[in-house]
Amino acid sequence: MRKGDLTPDRDRVTEEHELQETRFNPEAERSKNVRQYQREDEEDEEEEEEEGEESVEGIFESREVPSWEKQLTVRAFVVSLALSILFSFIVMKLNLTTGIIPSLNVSAGLLGFFFVKTWTQMLHKSGLLKQPFTRQENTVIQTCVVASSGIAFSGGFGTYLFAMSERIANHSGDAARGVKDPSLGWIIAFLFVVSFLGLFSVVPLRKIMIIDFKLTYPSGTATAHLINSFHTPQGAKLAKKQVRVLGKFFSLSFFWGCFQWFFTAGENCGFHSFPTFGLRAYQYKFYFDFSATYVGVGMICPYIINISLLLGGILSWGLMWPLIETRKGDWFPSNVDSSSMNGLQAYKVFIAVAMILGDGVYNFCKVLSRTLSGLFKQIRGEASWRTTLSREQEPPASPLTPKISYDDQRRTRFFLKDQIPSWFAGGGYVLIAAVSIGILPQMFDQLRWYYILVIYVFAPILAFCNAYGAGLTDWSLASTYGKLAIFTIGAWAGSDHGGVLAGLAACGVMMNIVSTASDLTQDFKTGYLTLSSPRAMFVSQVIGTAIGCLVSPCVFWLFYKAFDDLGLPNSKYPAPFATVYRSMAKLGVEGVSSLPRDCLVLCYAFFGFAILINVVKDGMGNRWGRFVPLPMAMAIPFFLGPYFAIDMCVGSLILFVWERLDAPKAEAFATAVASGLICGDGIWTLPSSVLAIAGVQPPMCMKFLSSETNHRVDKFLQGSS
Amino acid sequence: MRKGDLTPDRDRVTEEHELQETRFNPEAERSKNVRQYQREDEEDEEEEEEEGEESVEGIFESREVPSWEKQLTVRAFVVSLALSILFSFIVMKLNLTTGIIPSLNVSAGLLGFFFVKTWTQMLHKSGLLKQPFTRQENTVIQTCVVASSGIAFSGGFGTYLFAMSERIANHSGDAARGVKDPSLGWIIAFLFVVSFLGLFSVVPLRKIMIIDFKLTYPSGTATAHLINSFHTPQGAKLAKKQVRVLGKFFSLSFFWGCFQWFFTAGENCGFHSFPTFGLRAYQYKFYFDFSATYVGVGMICPYIINISLLLGGILSWGLMWPLIETRKGDWFPSNVDSSSMNGLQAYKVFIAVAMILGDGVYNFCKVLSRTLSGLFKQIRGEASWRTTLSREQEPPASPLTPKISYDDQRRTRFFLKDQIPSWFAGGGYVLIAAVSIGILPQMFDQLRWYYILVIYVFAPILAFCNAYGAGLTDWSLASTYGKLAIFTIGAWAGSDHGGVLAGLAACGVMMNIVSTASDLTQDFKTGYLTLSSPRAMFVSQVIGTAIGCLVSPCVFWLFYKAFDDLGLPNSKYPAPFATVYRSMAKLGVEGVSSLPRDCLVLCYAFFGFAILINVVKDGMGNRWGRFVPLPMAMAIPFFLGPYFAIDMCVGSLILFVWERLDAPKAEAFATAVASGLICGDGIWTLPSSVLAIAGVQPPMCMKFLSSETNHRVDKFLQGSS
Repeated sequence: MRKGDLTPDRDRVTEEHELQETRFNPEAERSKNVRQYQREDEEDEEEEEEEGEESVEGIFESREVPSWEKQLTVRAFVVSLALSILFSFIVMKLNLTTGIIPSLNVSAGLLGFFFVKTWTQMLHKSGLLKQPFTRQENTVIQTCVVASSGIAFSGGFGTYLFAMSERIANHSGDAARGVKDPSLGWIIAFLFVVSFLGLFSVVPLRKIMIIDFKLTYPSGTATAHLINSFHTPQGAKLAKKQVRVLGKFFSLSFFWGCFQWFFTAGENCGFHSFPTFGLRAYQYKFYFDFSATYVGVGMICPYIINISLLLGGILSWGLMWPLIETRKGDWFPSNVDSSSMNGLQAYKVFIAVAMILGDGVYNFCKVLSRTLSGLFKQIRGEASWRTTLSREQEPPASPLTPKISYDDQRRTRFFLKDQIPSWFAGGGYVLIAAVSIGILPQMFDQLRWYYILVIYVFAPILAFCNAYGAGLTDWSLASTYGKLAIFTIGAWAGSDHGGVLAGLAACGVMMNIVSTASDLTQDFKTGYLTLSSPRAMFVSQVIGTAIGCLVSPCVFWLFYKAFDDLGLPNSKYPAPFATVYRSMAKLGVEGVSSLPRDCLVLCYAFFGFAILINVVKDGMGNRWGRFVPLPMAMAIPFFLGPYFAIDMCVGSLILFVWERLDAPKAEAFATAVASGLICGDGIWTLPSSVLAIAGVQPPMCMKFLSSETNHRVDKFLQGSS
Repeated sequence: MRKGDLTPDRDRVTEEHELQETRFNPEAERSKNVRQYQREDEEDEEEEEEEGEESVEGIFESREVPSWEKQLTVRAFVVSLALSILFSFIVMKLNLTTGIIPSLNVSAGLLGFFFVKTWTQMLHKSGLLKQPFTRQENTVIQTCVVASSGIAFSGGFGTYLFAMSERIANHSGDAARGVKDPSLGWIIAFLFVVSFLGLFSVVPLRKIMIIDFKLTYPSGTATAHLINSFHTPQGAKLAKKQVRVLGKFFSLSFFWGCFQWFFTAGENCGFHSFPTFGLRAYQYKFYFDFSATYVGVGMICPYIINISLLLGGILSWGLMWPLIETRKGDWFPSNVDSSSMNGLQAYKVFIAVAMILGDGVYNFCKVLSRTLSGLFKQIRGEASWRTTLSREQEPPASPLTPKISYDDQRRTRFFLKDQIPSWFAGGGYVLIAAVSIGILPQMFDQLRWYYILVIYVFAPILAFCNAYGAGLTDWSLASTYGKLAIFTIGAWAGSDHGGVLAGLAACGVMMNIVSTASDLTQDFKTGYLTLSSPRAMFVSQVIGTAIGCLVSPCVFWLFYKAFDDLGLPNSKYPAPFATVYRSMAKLGVEGVSSLPRDCLVLCYAFFGFAILINVVKDGMGNRWGRFVPLPMAMAIPFFLGPYFAIDMCVGSLILFVWERLDAPKAEAFATAVASGLICGDGIWTLPSSVLAIAGVQPPMCMKFLSSETNHRVDKFLQGSS
């Protein structure tokens, strides 16, 4: 659901294929498979006659839909809180390692279902169950978890917010331009002030987007299919099996993480520094680092993303950096530290930034033009919008008499039942905006109150654009809008008035509104398809956002305190996008004068290259275009090195082989396996950071030495013992 | 087939269960599964009607049995040579690492079948095939490979022969008592002189053992079933599948071995030194060393062996050695090297020797008493022997009119067709014995000609006993007879006249005769059941033995030259039984006076303990006795440490889980998987030893350091770079 720099491409592909090709949407794919698998199950056991698949609501007709108050149960929020903490850890870990975040909605859905189902079954057996577990309640959990773990992303702990810190500033060599070190207090306050605005801005759009425009919202639709399928008898059975698989790989991955920890006393120790392809390849970050997380992420991400990452890694670390390195002393001073922004590091960061911006600009223009043309068509032919747009969902029986299906009728009725008054939404927005304008300048001296006012005037328009675009294409441009804010507000404030910090803070304000808007409209689509009350959804979102505003900063704080080298390159948590965002802010404020020699030329080249690839990709059509790599994905390893791309390609390879061997099983369980791998490793970060805070040193170091170094070390150890 | 210290227990268990319980005989088990799997296949595909399983020869009736000359084809010996080299490597590696050698007959059968089948199919397609591939030819290959790889075991490269070397002598601290370093020339000559005697001694026994006594020879019978099953259409299909599985795990294991190599620059480097359970556990050799070979061996060996090994490891390295270590300076001098025979090492070796001897004595008495009582019964009631003994194989329809089945009639006819004249066998024996008596004293000054004469007079009797015992129980006592020779000849020669060396050489002479005798009678049983001509079998055995006499020393030589630390404890190839054999020879010559304090008491205790366990085991019957550990298996880790026991238990665990998940598949393919793992890793030793001889150093060292040491090393490396 939430998109940005970090999870762009899965959905981008979906976008290009106009959803005819669902291969790359794991959830849509999955719900298809669930149905397929279910059908097999049915055929296998012949428990009941073949169901008519046309009407989902037909199946659920006999079940009563609870009132909106009853959809909000205490148990749902307890489960949501637990899952929020789990997913905050995972998202935070991903934020701080590579910034690539796969969609965890399926695991959230599965786990939520599992927890409540187990709970209700226990209660049912003891006779205490007052209220059965419904798909509406499941949707409420899903919404709450998505809202809260969304904050872990849009809170910018791996991007704008951490980019303000002294550590990143020092490393970028521009601490003089203003820093604001993270601290639990102001982060929570900041998040509370900016995170709820998106929520209110979305409320009036809800009906327009979903009932009137009938936008598809692929992720939201897929999630709804998933939840619906869980609550049919076969679906529940499959879900149980999936949960078992997830649990197995969860424990496997957790214990693997735990086992690895024992060998990581000191730097360059342990499996994370395993020179799988030799020491020379390791120097250029070509190695498999045995990370269960990224193998899992690789299994969820579409093949083309993983291939793009690898290609980018080979292009940069295999070719360009070694070549540029030979210019040491010529293009850049030879005496600077390898991680200094005056040396090779500058090339790495700025070329990556150029490529990300090139890709962003292209897609911004593309999505915006499609949004505008879609809107234009709808406004021009208001009467015929239904036939015009609904082709994307279901071709009507006849263009003249659009048939409204039983499902649609029933869903629309429930969706319109519990309204949220517009005055409430508008009033809420104005109120929170006012509070925000009052408070934010106190936090950030550099952020004048009129900057914020301008943002808040334009934000609803951009939020609408983003929600509409996401509905059409599943592609959220939140981080692009954020970058826009960095450049505009940064330039407006100017270098002398702390433009860097103003830009970054503005980015946060903007991103939170825009990202929440598209996320929550997705959720409303899910709610529409599961007959959940919009009012229940709204309450769940408010609670979820509040949970997120509290949990995410705490999780970040844990990481920040536990790992002293958080944010430094070559550390376990390099937080690559923090450096990228700070560099962008600097670029916006300073211009391009500070770059080392020929760096600018290379940046222009890669900016153009990114746009060119996109043009080629779109020009080649669906059939061949899907084999063209994605510039955004290619740019990420420029900075980080290709090691995680290798992990992810291993995940791809596993999935590929599995699909060849047993396609239905692979498709039904791959996401569960991947989620298990990601969640287990993610949760291990909790004890591991607690151990780090407690100062517990791992007992051993698994060290990799070259043959000669080993000889010297052996001699040294013999001599000294 | 070949038994001794090294593969005792699988067959021991079989013995105790009198073959009602075939669980522990992998081959018998396998052929059962093959039939089961085949039946499933038939049911699946319904290609043909259910066959009558009663008469195996009925199925093969239509196929012509080739003459004995035609059973001996050139292609069979080419394949045999290739497989002999492969298995010599594997057996040698096992000899020199732990001395535990699983039965490789199944892999030999599978691979032989695969090679010739592929070859004949290719020829068949090109129209050049003159002679189809028959089960007789397959038996010839099997026999040849067994004979040749048997030499790799009975040649004593890991036991008596290597025990004569200076390296082992120095390490045992008794180099003064005579050494004879290995050298390609004399080893080959020695083997040629002693290895053919067993062959000739067996020929006259053939008919008595197989036709008259109808002994079961479980391994031989199982191998015959396997070969017979391969040559039915379903069997061939399953065999093909098994070969594919074997091939897959072969390459996996080979590449894993190859991958591991890259990280082994220097001592204590690489996966073989992975402190899986922490550094303290590693000190006491508790770790998983990622050896594909021993995981595979663990999958082939019965559970109780692996558990016994682990128990022995825990008892010794987890309990006794740490306790004895605290007596340093009291029981033994504190300033001696850890690997010196004056220190803790002596306890390790002699307690293991005591336990092995206790077990050996018990089983010697047991098997001998059963042999004698069996013989006595047969001699007393010559007329009724058939009914008395055949209960072990098949209960006759009526005790009064023993029915001879069609299968038996046909088999007996073919078995008696091509006779080997007794004068040929007797003459051969006398001739070779004479040559041997002439040559051996030239090689070993300490070995007087009359020692050898005495051995050769008694050897046929012992060979008969061993062949009879193996036929009854599948349990070859070859190494026990060898130990007998060590003690008797050693004591006869006396300490001053090089008793140690004389004993070891006598052990070699004895072991070769006795072991060959039982191995080859097993082969004759296989031949009987596959209608192979005894004459063809004999020729094949002669050729196989000759191949073995040439290949095994060369393989040993390669290891000896490639690994400088071969035979030293804590090295990659510690050759544990070499030290054990030398210590036994020393004990025989010197008596017990040289042992450190309280060592003798402990030795007596463990000698008694071994006998006690055996008594308890036999006393408890089949049902509970099979849960009692085996003293012989428990003794092996006393000396080596439990690390390989952990590997083997991992293999057991994999098999156990696999059997729980999918029993028929596990039972049909487990041996193929295990063989693949063993063969792949075994074959990697070829390139790895070539690399070692060529002086190619692996590029990296994966080192494991404690947290503090790592800190010191990091400082040292920073300072020196």
